[in-house]
Amino acid sequence: MTDRYASFANSGPGRTLVKRLGLPDPPRLRRHRPGDPLLPGPALLGAAPGGRLRDQVAKILTAAGVELREPAAATDATADGRSAERYGALIFDATGITDSTGLRALYDFFHPYARGLTPSGRVIVLGTPPEACATPREATAQRALEGLTRSIGKEFGRGSTSQLVYVDRDGSPVSLESTLRFLLSGRSAYVSGQVIRIGPGPATAPADWDRPLAGRVALVTGAARGIGAELARVLARDGARVVALDVPAAGDELAAVANAIGGEAVQLDLTAADAPDRLARYLADRHGQLDVLVHNAGITRDKTLGRMDPGRWDAVLDVNLSSQERINDVLLDRDLIRAGGRLIGVSSIAGLAGNRGQTNYATSKAGVVGLVRSMAPVLADREITVNAVAPGFIETRLTARIPLMLREAGRRMNSMAQGGLPVDVAETIAWLASPAAGGITGNVVRVCGQSLLGA
Amino acid sequence: MTDRYASFANSGPGRTLVKRLGLPDPPRLRRHRPGDPLLPGPALLGAAPGGRLRDQVAKILTAAGVELREPAAATDATADGRSAERYGALIFDATGITDSTGLRALYDFFHPYARGLTPSGRVIVLGTPPEACATPREATAQRALEGLTRSIGKEFGRGSTSQLVYVDRDGSPVSLESTLRFLLSGRSAYVSGQVIRIGPGPATAPADWDRPLAGRVALVTGAARGIGAELARVLARDGARVVALDVPAAGDELAAVANAIGGEAVQLDLTAADAPDRLARYLADRHGQLDVLVHNAGITRDKTLGRMDPGRWDAVLDVNLSSQERINDVLLDRDLIRAGGRLIGVSSIAGLAGNRGQTNYATSKAGVVGLVRSMAPVLADREITVNAVAPGFIETRLTARIPLMLREAGRRMNSMAQGGLPVDVAETIAWLASPAAGGITGNVVRVCGQSLLGA
Repeated sequence: MTDRYASFANSGPGRTLVKRLGLPDPPRLRRHRPGDPLLPGPALLGAAPGGRLRDQVAKILTAAGVELREPAAATDATADGRSAERYGALIFDATGITDSTGLRALYDFFHPYARGLTPSGRVIVLGTPPEACATPREATAQRALEGLTRSIGKEFGRGSTSQLVYVDRDGSPVSLESTLRFLLSGRSAYVSGQVIRIGPGPATAPADWDRPLAGRVALVTGAARGIGAELARVLARDGARVVALDVPAAGDELAAVANAIGGEAVQLDLTAADAPDRLARYLADRHGQLDVLVHNAGITRDKTLGRMDPGRWDAVLDVNLSSQERINDVLLDRDLIRAGGRLIGVSSIAGLAGNRGQTNYATSKAGVVGLVRSMAPVLADREITVNAVAPGFIETRLTARIPLMLREAGRRMNSMAQGGLPVDVAETIAWLASPAAGGITGNVVRVCGQSLLGA
Repeated sequence: MTDRYASFANSGPGRTLVKRLGLPDPPRLRRHRPGDPLLPGPALLGAAPGGRLRDQVAKILTAAGVELREPAAATDATADGRSAERYGALIFDATGITDSTGLRALYDFFHPYARGLTPSGRVIVLGTPPEACATPREATAQRALEGLTRSIGKEFGRGSTSQLVYVDRDGSPVSLESTLRFLLSGRSAYVSGQVIRIGPGPATAPADWDRPLAGRVALVTGAARGIGAELARVLARDGARVVALDVPAAGDELAAVANAIGGEAVQLDLTAADAPDRLARYLADRHGQLDVLVHNAGITRDKTLGRMDPGRWDAVLDVNLSSQERINDVLLDRDLIRAGGRLIGVSSIAGLAGNRGQTNYATSKAGVVGLVRSMAPVLADREITVNAVAPGFIETRLTARIPLMLREAGRRMNSMAQGGLPVDVAETIAWLASPAAGGITGNVVRVCGQSLLGA
């Protein structure tokens, strides 16, 4: 569960050796600690002429305690493309770009500051969703932004991240705020190269941004260990009353997780025929309604298709997909998920890209993407959002069992040259779970350090 | 421009060494030769109960001279998952699957035959586009298909390909036929792991499937060399009158290409202010209207963003994106593209995934995706389709200049363990250019051997 190479590479003698031999150089990632400022340095905020988000973003950042800088006139940046100051973030409002010739504004903004980011710095480009653009020319230019942000994520290095945030013209300002707070902070340490869409939808700013889930009830499945256990902890830290659920066989570990956070432990096999009903009755009795439901439980049963027995197919599809659909349907039918509720699924890079030996797993995880996309418009009427995260290589007991060479490939083949931690997935889910995230639905966000692998 | 390792690995002594040392084992891919049958063996055709495409597909395949087999009852397949016969293709109509529990039909069909494909065999799954499904449950199951086909592409090996074809309920039968012919044949040798959407839209079956472009006029930009030169040859072979265009500096090579295929050479710098007008007048004078327009011209000017001079940004964006928009607009304004016309752009894996040192190139190629998506609905009214191909690692003079280790990584990190050839891109474009492809618009199809790289 530990990346010994990364620890070594960040030690005194390790650093020297890594540089001399040109070995992979996994940076120490900035992660959130209570009381940390959002950024380790000021943010540089620029905009293409006519941008509609610059002022809104400036207000959000200032209120969040971020020091703002304006891009200097071209002559102030030194000739070799270095600026004197170091920035915690480079943020660019590209919504004013309505034609591909206007993309030059991106170059003008980023070129002089490309090497001016602090380690674990942040790049955020804000755009208009191509499907909401007035003309094909505008849609083309806005879609082009993705090529830039993904390239920057692979180029800037040193733990920096780069994202494209598409904000609808009626996109929720509160959700934009919560998204910027997430992306700038150390909570998004392992999220990079992503495209996030913010739409309308009712969203509520929390009284305390450090406890956005105060007074909310959250159910986490598969909570006994790994990502689920960490998620239970993070949601509780954010103020939620956490119902931690897992199979009876994991009862002891589950109890330990629940006790440590003052939550409840529920032992239940979600694939049992009566599970949805039993869960529904438990929630109705104890909590009335649920605010946050995270379908984190998942299993793998790897085999190539020719060698796979039907039990492996059925078990993976049922745990990872079908049982979740059954539970959603029952909880929604009985009105057990409150307006303002948050459904969150867990997909996987394998679900997006496919994987050898995982036809069953990839099919189930691709299904999670389908579930999110197809349920989002249906649930919007009830003011419930549905999103998923798609983890890449995360350091857990599961990945510790992967053979060394494959494990090293998975760990290093991303922009961070290291695996992520369960907390990285948990923080991403917590962002989507927040009452402020009401404008975010139908999204699938990878937590993969911008893994090279994809579809 | 040659992959010496692949030649060696396919030689007598090479095969032995490759097996002994566990080296990458690039198979010799089946490519189209005139007179070849579509498949080297019979096709196994199955369907989930209620599938709406099985009979249509059976008719298409039989007419195309493909021998059809029905899946045996479970007991006929031998116990270890091997069937006795070898199949050129495994084709499954999954449109009857309306719920994730129904996905089991995929396992039942593919498991017994997973090792029953000939080398360079074909896997095709047919589904309903998730956005056109009646219920979220159905959309979820249909989206899950993508996890299966992408995994099979990575698992089956030996030059086999695997695709998911979504067919609208009113999807064009002619376009389904042309797509099946393309995917089964050696023309799609380097296309795998793709998701293709077939909608309505008027499509015309050619009198001769070997000369679908007879009587059509096709313009190819960047035609003097590489992919463009090969494309000119393939479109001419398919019957088109080809207008081969390139910059004046490439005049000699361009003339050679045009002469070899009995086409026309046009020397023009497409970024010149008067280029759209000059091209429009040339086409109007010589041909009246154009049937096929392939924007193949493209350049790279690689540098990291901090070291990139503005000229590199501007040149790449203008050649690869803005000049193409200007030309489209003028030709469309003057009604120089016939109803039934085909616009085809060239994107790139770098445009989808981003790439270090290619912020300019990736931005332009992501823009091509935006152009295709945003123009498709607009042009549908004029019965013109617009699509793009996104090549991965293709063996050309350009890639021959990549440093050895990077070149080897690019070549091997895909399901074929080798680079593609210019003809692979050309055949894919020819499929999209056909009058039969009227039901295909807004698609971006990768020609990358299912490269691991993606977004």
